[in-house]
Amino acid sequence: MTVDTHTNVPDKFQGFGSDKKENWNKPKLVSYDRKQIKPYDVVLENEACGLCYSDIHTLQANWSPYNRDDLVVGHEIIGKVIAVGDKVTEFKVGDRAGIGAASSSCRDCGRCQGDNEQYCKTQVSTYNNIDSRADNYVTQGGYSSHSIADEKFVFAIPEGLSSTEAAPLMCAGITVFSPLYRNLGADAKGKTVGIIGIGGLGHLALQLAKALGAKVVAFSRTSSKKEQALKLGADEFVATSEDKNWTDRYDDAFDFILNCASGVDGLNLPDYLGVLKVDKKFISVGLPPVKEKFEVSPFTFLKHGASFGSSLLGSKVEVNEMLRLASKHNIKPWIEEIPISEENCARALNRCYEGDVRYRFVFTDFDKAFAK
Amino acid sequence: MTVDTHTNVPDKFQGFGSDKKENWNKPKLVSYDRKQIKPYDVVLENEACGLCYSDIHTLQANWSPYNRDDLVVGHEIIGKVIAVGDKVTEFKVGDRAGIGAASSSCRDCGRCQGDNEQYCKTQVSTYNNIDSRADNYVTQGGYSSHSIADEKFVFAIPEGLSSTEAAPLMCAGITVFSPLYRNLGADAKGKTVGIIGIGGLGHLALQLAKALGAKVVAFSRTSSKKEQALKLGADEFVATSEDKNWTDRYDDAFDFILNCASGVDGLNLPDYLGVLKVDKKFISVGLPPVKEKFEVSPFTFLKHGASFGSSLLGSKVEVNEMLRLASKHNIKPWIEEIPISEENCARALNRCYEGDVRYRFVFTDFDKAFAK
Repeated sequence: MTVDTHTNVPDKFQGFGSDKKENWNKPKLVSYDRKQIKPYDVVLENEACGLCYSDIHTLQANWSPYNRDDLVVGHEIIGKVIAVGDKVTEFKVGDRAGIGAASSSCRDCGRCQGDNEQYCKTQVSTYNNIDSRADNYVTQGGYSSHSIADEKFVFAIPEGLSSTEAAPLMCAGITVFSPLYRNLGADAKGKTVGIIGIGGLGHLALQLAKALGAKVVAFSRTSSKKEQALKLGADEFVATSEDKNWTDRYDDAFDFILNCASGVDGLNLPDYLGVLKVDKKFISVGLPPVKEKFEVSPFTFLKHGASFGSSLLGSKVEVNEMLRLASKHNIKPWIEEIPISEENCARALNRCYEGDVRYRFVFTDFDKAFAK
Repeated sequence: MTVDTHTNVPDKFQGFGSDKKENWNKPKLVSYDRKQIKPYDVVLENEACGLCYSDIHTLQANWSPYNRDDLVVGHEIIGKVIAVGDKVTEFKVGDRAGIGAASSSCRDCGRCQGDNEQYCKTQVSTYNNIDSRADNYVTQGGYSSHSIADEKFVFAIPEGLSSTEAAPLMCAGITVFSPLYRNLGADAKGKTVGIIGIGGLGHLALQLAKALGAKVVAFSRTSSKKEQALKLGADEFVATSEDKNWTDRYDDAFDFILNCASGVDGLNLPDYLGVLKVDKKFISVGLPPVKEKFEVSPFTFLKHGASFGSSLLGSKVEVNEMLRLASKHNIKPWIEEIPISEENCARALNRCYEGDVRYRFVFTDFDKAFAK
């Protein structure tokens, strides 16, 4: 067992976990056996973790049932490396590093070898996922003392970024950056991008799209977030419910549109497809409950050769590029720091559920919450 | 009036037209005022016209109401040039040429100037469309003695192709070729493409995809068309209703999937999206009645970064490339020739409606049907 060689890693980790969906907003302090440390694994002692809306969807069992009754979520994790497996080359004890929403993959398939490891068919999510390469361990998230991931899914954090500011980049950041980067390219000068929804995802998309050099148009239902959107880097702002003629103004304008709104209900897909240039994409990264659907007809897409799709996280290469850009352009998520505890997990989950956060909670003070 | 300068072009054209959707399959011989000949227009005396399923959708008013009560359809037209406008440079009287589903555009917008003229916002369809640049003339199709189109939408036919074989390339051919070409590139060696639906569109897609160099997999509900699909160039054939494990066999296999089936009902979109490589497209060119929809969730697309879209015809540059390839690779639609007449229009429309054609009717003997 490789486990035994890591004497400085406790056998039990601690975290804030829920037992069932009815208690989604009442996580309790739990202690659980840690995952086995494999040759490519990196072990972090956690120091910050962002709250992603995926945490709420998972805790409410909107996407899948609970795979354990002490389910710890959180996948925007920053910590200090305290141990590494034998084959790890990119990290050493003492480094600061981050982990996002995926924690391992097969390393061998075409996707893993081709900078699409996040799309590996056996990729294991950071929490509530069964890891068949680790004795079917059910993974636990970052509202916890420690985290373990394959180094392919561990990211070095540049010095210029604080841990709390880096945390939301691990999921929200890369989720929006990868489709922006793939569709606009590294140099987006002369291109126009639309960002729908100014929230946890969207407020990072505005900054990252601007950093790539694009002209950025922010879309929101009302004008309540206009000032903030412009401050975040939007060149223009459209309040779709107040401005009925916006589609005329943006005729044939967009090289890419990224939907960061979390629900699909009420989103007028034909309006957005209608302002794309020819052969361009509308990508939705906001993920609704599985039962919510868009209805589409080929006709909706016909007039512009448009297409609709989604995108999952980003590759390590893309995470590194995002972190470089964030560092260079001083891109920072707008966060509210909150010391991690049972009470504060409940408070942050409830407030996020109600949309009462601009734009990201990040849990802190892990050293106080978890006794050694 | 430019009209007067073209003394060899009759003021009245003849065609087989329907007055209302109830008579969709009973077109009668009609005579109608021709469209004004503009400076970039080319006038054909028609000699062949394919029957496209769009003709039936239009005659049945599935897509839009009738804009005239002597509606002549047909947009796979081949004929001889008998007159050209003052500014036409690519054609002269006596040339053989074709016209597809579009007949004019503004010539000035970014799309027209950028080899996407088929997506021009003021593109005029070959029939049942109001041409605001020609005194709101309602366009008439190619089940007729003559046709008129802007030279941007008129195509020179290579010598190696007969007129009846060239006709279906004008709509069915370019409709499948453009998305194949845009998604696979001019050299598709090493790439794998799926073609769904072996009919008027699909049987050309198989041949054109093969000519581009791709590995081609044909999909059909049953195995009834297997032999024909292989003969048309498919490397492999899948009968989706008889082979429940096909998705396992084609895991991560496809660079592109083109849906040529005319309905969306019963098409399992998640199955097809699931066998795409990362960041690839599923394009549907078969157009159902407008009320038929796909239901899609971002989750359907998430696992592969897949996207869904449609595509409209192709540019003149693409038509010319398709015709070059067709000539070089001896690509030929499988056609049933039928002399044009009231009786035969009815017969061909009915048989096509019932799916009783492999794979394309082409009307012939125009000189006998239309007295000079």
